[in-house]
Amino acid sequence: MGSPSPADQVSRRAQVLAGHLRGLQTSTEPSLSPSPCLQYSPPELASPPPDFNLSDMRKLMDGHNLQDRDWLFGLMIQSKLFNPRVAGGRVFVSPDYSQSMEQQREMTMKRIHYLLDCGVFQEWLTGRGPEVEMRKFALHEVIGMYDHSLAVKLGVHYFLWGGAIQFFGTKRHHDKWLRDTENYVIKGCFAMTELGHGSNVRGIETVTTYDSKTGEFVINSPCESAQKYWIGGAANHATHTIVFSQLNINGKSEGVHAFIAQIRDTDGNICPNVRVADCGHKIGLNGVDNGRIWFDNVRIPRENLLNSVADVSPDGQYLSAIKDPDQRFAAFLAPLTSGRVTIASSAVYSSKMSLAIAIRYSLTRRAFSLTPNQPEVLLLDYPSHQRRLLPLLAKTYAMSFAANYLKMIYVKRTPESNKTIHVVSSAFKAILTWHNMRTLQECREACGGQGLKTENRIGHMKGEYDVQSTFEGDNNVLMQQVSKALLAEYIAVQKRNRPFKGLGLEHLNKSCPDVPSQLTSSTLRSSQFQTDIFCLRERDLLIRFAAEISQLQAQGLSREYALLQSYQLAEDLGRAFSDRAILQTFLDAEAAVSSGPLKVNIGNFLL
Amino acid sequence: MGSPSPADQVSRRAQVLAGHLRGLQTSTEPSLSPSPCLQYSPPELASPPPDFNLSDMRKLMDGHNLQDRDWLFGLMIQSKLFNPRVAGGRVFVSPDYSQSMEQQREMTMKRIHYLLDCGVFQEWLTGRGPEVEMRKFALHEVIGMYDHSLAVKLGVHYFLWGGAIQFFGTKRHHDKWLRDTENYVIKGCFAMTELGHGSNVRGIETVTTYDSKTGEFVINSPCESAQKYWIGGAANHATHTIVFSQLNINGKSEGVHAFIAQIRDTDGNICPNVRVADCGHKIGLNGVDNGRIWFDNVRIPRENLLNSVADVSPDGQYLSAIKDPDQRFAAFLAPLTSGRVTIASSAVYSSKMSLAIAIRYSLTRRAFSLTPNQPEVLLLDYPSHQRRLLPLLAKTYAMSFAANYLKMIYVKRTPESNKTIHVVSSAFKAILTWHNMRTLQECREACGGQGLKTENRIGHMKGEYDVQSTFEGDNNVLMQQVSKALLAEYIAVQKRNRPFKGLGLEHLNKSCPDVPSQLTSSTLRSSQFQTDIFCLRERDLLIRFAAEISQLQAQGLSREYALLQSYQLAEDLGRAFSDRAILQTFLDAEAAVSSGPLKVNIGNFLL
Repeated sequence: MGSPSPADQVSRRAQVLAGHLRGLQTSTEPSLSPSPCLQYSPPELASPPPDFNLSDMRKLMDGHNLQDRDWLFGLMIQSKLFNPRVAGGRVFVSPDYSQSMEQQREMTMKRIHYLLDCGVFQEWLTGRGPEVEMRKFALHEVIGMYDHSLAVKLGVHYFLWGGAIQFFGTKRHHDKWLRDTENYVIKGCFAMTELGHGSNVRGIETVTTYDSKTGEFVINSPCESAQKYWIGGAANHATHTIVFSQLNINGKSEGVHAFIAQIRDTDGNICPNVRVADCGHKIGLNGVDNGRIWFDNVRIPRENLLNSVADVSPDGQYLSAIKDPDQRFAAFLAPLTSGRVTIASSAVYSSKMSLAIAIRYSLTRRAFSLTPNQPEVLLLDYPSHQRRLLPLLAKTYAMSFAANYLKMIYVKRTPESNKTIHVVSSAFKAILTWHNMRTLQECREACGGQGLKTENRIGHMKGEYDVQSTFEGDNNVLMQQVSKALLAEYIAVQKRNRPFKGLGLEHLNKSCPDVPSQLTSSTLRSSQFQTDIFCLRERDLLIRFAAEISQLQAQGLSREYALLQSYQLAEDLGRAFSDRAILQTFLDAEAAVSSGPLKVNIGNFLL
Repeated sequence: MGSPSPADQVSRRAQVLAGHLRGLQTSTEPSLSPSPCLQYSPPELASPPPDFNLSDMRKLMDGHNLQDRDWLFGLMIQSKLFNPRVAGGRVFVSPDYSQSMEQQREMTMKRIHYLLDCGVFQEWLTGRGPEVEMRKFALHEVIGMYDHSLAVKLGVHYFLWGGAIQFFGTKRHHDKWLRDTENYVIKGCFAMTELGHGSNVRGIETVTTYDSKTGEFVINSPCESAQKYWIGGAANHATHTIVFSQLNINGKSEGVHAFIAQIRDTDGNICPNVRVADCGHKIGLNGVDNGRIWFDNVRIPRENLLNSVADVSPDGQYLSAIKDPDQRFAAFLAPLTSGRVTIASSAVYSSKMSLAIAIRYSLTRRAFSLTPNQPEVLLLDYPSHQRRLLPLLAKTYAMSFAANYLKMIYVKRTPESNKTIHVVSSAFKAILTWHNMRTLQECREACGGQGLKTENRIGHMKGEYDVQSTFEGDNNVLMQQVSKALLAEYIAVQKRNRPFKGLGLEHLNKSCPDVPSQLTSSTLRSSQFQTDIFCLRERDLLIRFAAEISQLQAQGLSREYALLQSYQLAEDLGRAFSDRAILQTFLDAEAAVSSGPLKVNIGNFLL
């Protein structure tokens, strides 16, 4: 007997899994099937291939830029920098995480230069339009599948530093910085967070004043809590940084603005009046050189204010098209949305990897026989093990479609869709990253001790991805913001007596959906019923949240106090909104697949 | 103004916390109290000291051997090996986890030798009785608070290797090995787990035969899956190991037995026919040298069979006082109970440390002001932040009493209490370690990015303690075993028409407790009501579990299949049993405190 090709093996594995999923819904009989043990040959080799086309499934899941992804996978496995290892006729790449922090940082830089030379980052900043952005997302996802540090280091440089110049800067900044940034000639970082202020960006304490005599801005860290903290790239490599700072003009604070400051010269020496320290060893992302920065009255040219929102004239007059400081501040935060989009998407890829590893393991590892001297049972044949992993797998399918939807609305953004994108990206970032951490933990435990070996990835990814729940907007804070936005929409609709429009809340314009009093098995599986109950939950929580806030305000609390007191309803509402929106993306994706085995298999995850 | 003493600071902090806890139960008013921000001086400095005596509280929580604990803390902070650092007039010690795996292993050994020279391990194996065991537990807990690797490395040597010799061995083994083990002259490891068999010890594949011509046993690893795996100490340092192996006498398998084999000579060279490999880098416990061992027909003297349960005569006859192979196997596993006791207890100390760090942080860090230009709000003044941390704190108090109870019944064990100890230690090990992982994750997120810095401990402890959910009995497997034991007791009671006795199930002899139809606030806070509902839940789940198993068996399923199908009820029942038992230990501990402020404060955590 010849050994099956890798593609056949994958097919059969998928078939076995599909069988398990079908089993989840219908079986009350035991699905345990003891078979000869201790051989470590996956039992799916004996099963027929799946009835759907695997590359169609892959196309549906990855969604876009498949060739670009494969090209990048190919570049990685060709280079020794990515530690290729051959196993079972296939090449696997993975960083060596037993290296010291310094070694990991050095390897990250070497890998960046290799990818740069291969042209991976072409058009990442000089290109425009949805196609360029989707390619960038796809390549960044592939990079993240290899190593989260590599993705984050590049994300800081291209998306945060580069994005800040694109969004906050004007032509003079674009001309001066974008090409050199794309070519990694200059290396940028993004100094927003301070020791004393993370989620509350508006409270940062760095202060910038203007000296009209020299035509320079003067950036200062007035106290210890004003030091910039966690700045990726600051500890070792960055030459320049975006500095977020309060702008103080003629004694008046004009709020947070963004400036460009050089922090290292071309030889890597720290610039005068700048002080840098290392944030040190972390539980993950040790390939990223996070650092702290203090500014001791650092002088920068007037032109280094990123002036798309507001400017200061040579003689020191503050000029802004946006008079409302709240709106001005919001304009500075809008570009962070791309960060939430990439985080949400990379969380899904992390979940996919860990589930692939844990489910494969459960299809090879056996434990306990049911009767003495009988073969032991495959882990995935245990109903409890199915229950632990397969619902997470189904959810990960759902969240994969949600991430694709989020990327799509982001690259097609218009001024009108900005609010929806802000709310959806906040909600999905929180829910998808929490889901990822939960999935990683369950997969790690499902692999037993093997889940703790660094080279087996799952346990290690827990440390790598933990940061996602709190960076670029703490998840809890984001969920509160989502609920606040829903509440504002609810109040506006009531006040102006107009229908709901946007944020997927249109279902509230209709009457409350009926839930059948007799729930049959086919009702439970109908997508209409599923949509109805998710909408019902969202409707109920929104109405209760609005009522509670209103009641607390009637008791004399300020709106802010009332919102803080109602945090539990706010959190539940944020989850209900997200779950309903994610289900919708799943149903839409399934609806777009033409009839056939692929549609049936995707449908199985929905049930 | 002079700065307050550290003791005063602690007192005030405790008082603020007590206030927050009281607030949890009664307050519907906002507990937010903005105060001057950005100073990083804990606000509790302005509060009055707590009304209870802090050292009384500490005595209640630590429970035993306080002087021994303080002596060991003192030994650590005096030695450079433990990296002492002075901050705020106090000495803090913590390992340097940015070191390589090799460096961490070397430091672990140096610290062991220092503690050995100080006499820490005196009587750990040569002493007898509850006092000696409680002292050993206390010192081991303190060691674990410093570093989980150090505790695990010592646990393998003293509790597993040393314990196996104590429990499975007879006088000849005790005389030969215990003193040298206590003095760390020989270094032991414990080769039970294999690549192919972890939780299912009974299925291990290592085979030992007897050669009556030479009077030797011959130990062999017949296949790759039989390699010993995760053996702490095997990779670098251990000189000897306990080998768990099938014993094959005259062609008949007599089941799993334990043998002593030397694996390294006094110069550290691997012995003939033994092969050792390193398990490599892990997500935690890198100070422990876990390794893999293969035996290629390794010969050991007949006397190296640990023969308290069974023996082989010089001419090769198998002799055992226990004829039933099931009971014989159970006898070999019983000593593992001490492992579950120490794991459960150390999980609680990990939770305590992470909560102490996260709550202190929440009493110094501020975020967002409620109205523009107003001071920002302390994290712990947010109702949502209280809700995240304080219930975990209350649960950790409960689990601390549970761990103390478990240690107490363990050191006072009798043949009659063995079953209870087995069930309670399995239940508490699972529940306390899961609680610890949940607590660590919440505390990490509650500290934002600071929770990810290795030197801030919380994030790092997630990697260190993750292993606890799956080693020395996978938590899910343990919970199933607990439910099976409860079911067996239920069936025995029914069959023999006798009352429940033991396992805390006596409440089932009484009629079902009444739940008042009107739940008032004082009902909810009454310990009788709380006990009633926990008992009710356990009773209900046990009856349902028994009914479901019986129904499935009536449908023709074997008992084993039926148990696997009912895994969800089994899991719920296991939790209900554990929660009821833990609550009881909390109530008992509170009842034992004489009236006064301490009792009131402990009572607050119960409400």
